[in-house]
Amino acid sequence: MAAASRAKRMLGDRAEVVVFEKGSWVSFALCGTPYYIGCRVRRLDDLLYYPPEEFTRRRGIRVMLRTLVTELEPGEGRLRYRSLSTGEEGWYEYDYLVLATGARPRVLGEWLRYRNVYTLHSLGDADRVRAAAVRDDVRRIVVIGGGYTGVEAAENLAGLGRRVTIIHRRGWLLNRMLDEDMKGLVEERARAAGVELVLGRRVEGLEGSGDLAVSAVLDNGERVGGDLFIVAGGIEPAADIAEKAGIRLGETGAVWTDERMRTSVDNVYAVGDVAETRDLVTGGRVWWPFAPAANKMGYVAGTNIAGGDARFPGVVRTSAVGAFGFYVAATGLGEEEARRHGFNPVAARLKARTRAHYMGGEEIVLKVVADADTGRLLGAQAVSGDPSGFWRVNVVASLLYKGATVWDLFGVDVGYWPGLNPVWDPLTVAARLLFRQLGAAPPKPEDKGG
Amino acid sequence: MAAASRAKRMLGDRAEVVVFEKGSWVSFALCGTPYYIGCRVRRLDDLLYYPPEEFTRRRGIRVMLRTLVTELEPGEGRLRYRSLSTGEEGWYEYDYLVLATGARPRVLGEWLRYRNVYTLHSLGDADRVRAAAVRDDVRRIVVIGGGYTGVEAAENLAGLGRRVTIIHRRGWLLNRMLDEDMKGLVEERARAAGVELVLGRRVEGLEGSGDLAVSAVLDNGERVGGDLFIVAGGIEPAADIAEKAGIRLGETGAVWTDERMRTSVDNVYAVGDVAETRDLVTGGRVWWPFAPAANKMGYVAGTNIAGGDARFPGVVRTSAVGAFGFYVAATGLGEEEARRHGFNPVAARLKARTRAHYMGGEEIVLKVVADADTGRLLGAQAVSGDPSGFWRVNVVASLLYKGATVWDLFGVDVGYWPGLNPVWDPLTVAARLLFRQLGAAPPKPEDKGG
Repeated sequence: MAAASRAKRMLGDRAEVVVFEKGSWVSFALCGTPYYIGCRVRRLDDLLYYPPEEFTRRRGIRVMLRTLVTELEPGEGRLRYRSLSTGEEGWYEYDYLVLATGARPRVLGEWLRYRNVYTLHSLGDADRVRAAAVRDDVRRIVVIGGGYTGVEAAENLAGLGRRVTIIHRRGWLLNRMLDEDMKGLVEERARAAGVELVLGRRVEGLEGSGDLAVSAVLDNGERVGGDLFIVAGGIEPAADIAEKAGIRLGETGAVWTDERMRTSVDNVYAVGDVAETRDLVTGGRVWWPFAPAANKMGYVAGTNIAGGDARFPGVVRTSAVGAFGFYVAATGLGEEEARRHGFNPVAARLKARTRAHYMGGEEIVLKVVADADTGRLLGAQAVSGDPSGFWRVNVVASLLYKGATVWDLFGVDVGYWPGLNPVWDPLTVAARLLFRQLGAAPPKPEDKGG
Repeated sequence: MAAASRAKRMLGDRAEVVVFEKGSWVSFALCGTPYYIGCRVRRLDDLLYYPPEEFTRRRGIRVMLRTLVTELEPGEGRLRYRSLSTGEEGWYEYDYLVLATGARPRVLGEWLRYRNVYTLHSLGDADRVRAAAVRDDVRRIVVIGGGYTGVEAAENLAGLGRRVTIIHRRGWLLNRMLDEDMKGLVEERARAAGVELVLGRRVEGLEGSGDLAVSAVLDNGERVGGDLFIVAGGIEPAADIAEKAGIRLGETGAVWTDERMRTSVDNVYAVGDVAETRDLVTGGRVWWPFAPAANKMGYVAGTNIAGGDARFPGVVRTSAVGAFGFYVAATGLGEEEARRHGFNPVAARLKARTRAHYMGGEEIVLKVVADADTGRLLGAQAVSGDPSGFWRVNVVASLLYKGATVWDLFGVDVGYWPGLNPVWDPLTVAARLLFRQLGAAPPKPEDKGG
């Protein structure tokens, strides 16, 4: 919708803009679904950014809901579609095509044949999960996957008074965001919320009785019983229609794009969770299915299609999540990950207060990773009791985006007010700790001509 | 204390480090004094970062409290001091000298002869103001000055149930942080807190009766009566002792320093509120008497004296303040200020929610200023009901520090979680609005080799 809106806004009556959407909604907040399940967001409609009429009436975009695109013929500049409501089929001819088919759960089809097993990947899913979770015969809920969605779903389901178990095949929750030495606070808080953790175990299958799943079977043969199962186990780009049409996929399995969001095929763009982009820290390609990047990609594609010149250079992989009352955020590379990418990482980890000692505040654990050979910043992670950890990570994200060093992290002029941070902000303290890690001869700061 | 601690830590027993301090405290939080006055910080000791013994016993630094340095002889490498307690005088010979004499109120001596007129520039001042303000015969308090200190003092005194009037010679409060089009929320809230505002008026003098001031006389002849007067009217660098010793002052009146915090005289450094630094946005010299810069300057001077190589490249002038329940923050240049510095400024100002619409949040007004000729970011201002406005300003500060453009502001990978920000963060929206301001041909983004 970002691409459609932007192109239509720039082109006006000079262009017809049509959106084909197989589902019943456009412009919805998938990230809000866990809070809908937990009744913190009350109505499904609250998760719509705009009703479809905003696009059809006010923005002049044709929106074809419940309409599946079944085939692309980029050589001919046309696509085939079928209405899921009426079965009607047709061809549509375009000058420019934007692929925004998104991502889909990478879940075994056979698990879903049980009617108490759900994924959480659409507003419809959210509706079904909430309806199931609030039934009074549902007491034990098993969440398979301890990443973003799994953690948020577990927190919200526990908040409904259900006994929740998270099964996660990695050794700690949110392992894509946090290094192992950062896991403590989150796991403590998860357990305090009554959530049971089964870590480092893969689910081999589900055991059922009739059309109901009864337990998850782990790779060590143990079983975890439940009345309801949420599979929050990972997603993949929904790129088959592009692949079938001969559009190049990148090494990540998502559709290859350049900085203007063009694919390998003339006049075809790809944006959002189906598109591959660049990792500005490693310089490599990355699949980064997060909403802000998706929206920006749409804006950039729409601008370029309308004759402008916009670019989406890539991401430094900033993400954030709420976890059992804490705010968790990360950007760039973790320590291990940095090593895998050929860097020589050093890290500073510190516990601090988020404000001046005499103004209260919350606890924050902050970790910053840098490259010992060059002093370049590589990443940051924070877990904190207030949102300031997230924002400190965003400051590092800005510096990563500009290829900054540990000296920049020290020098950067973060404001100070005692009700907001300590006078030595944890970011500055992290820079000082990194100086120590960098040894007696830290890389010289840039000369600013002083 | 930052310079002393850093040098002593690096040099250990190889150096004697002595601190001369004319007052009775070291390492205190002057920024916290308004909250002490308002009884939100209860004890004066709460405003000490460390007791003096932390430095004397644990860090091995000699701290000479209530000891005035009366004369410097940099040619001889010595200084003269006098104990304010015993009157004893002496000379001290040094290899390196760090000037950290700070700033002082620029207030007319004659005003202070009234015993109900106070400045707010030391813990002692804070103690006296609180003692005076809580007396039950004090009902009307006049605060002269509507900058950082004036606003915080007024908020806290109003919180004690006093009738407070701010007299400010500029047309709106916090005019050094906020452009006029950003003033609305703060003034609304000030009035809602019962604070009366007299704006655009200079105080010509105080009228008294005996040793008590009775009213402030304005430049239009009007009088504002009060039982207690707080002069929060600006400060200046306490640089006379340096000037007398032949140490160069910069164009701002503060002691000239280079990036290593060296003054014009060998082996003499200057740090903190007495030192001048560089404005990284304008490229000019600036006096920036704020605590984080002061502490970093101290760290840098201490490192260099101990044989390291550290630099403080300058500031982008980020500041923050609490104002009647709002958080106010700014960095870089305002629109008018940018014009005065020869830029061709454009600005985007927007009102938004600080979080996704379905997760509550507060109001934020954000303004970002950029240069139309180059697309370079020049500054940002925010007023918000939660701290996220401050942190958004810090993200812009990081970008200013790296000389970034509006395209960088759009591209920078700020994280997203619905409980923390909208998916189109106000920062990204500001970038989009600035694109429009920049017209049909915005400056090309940097080529990132994509």
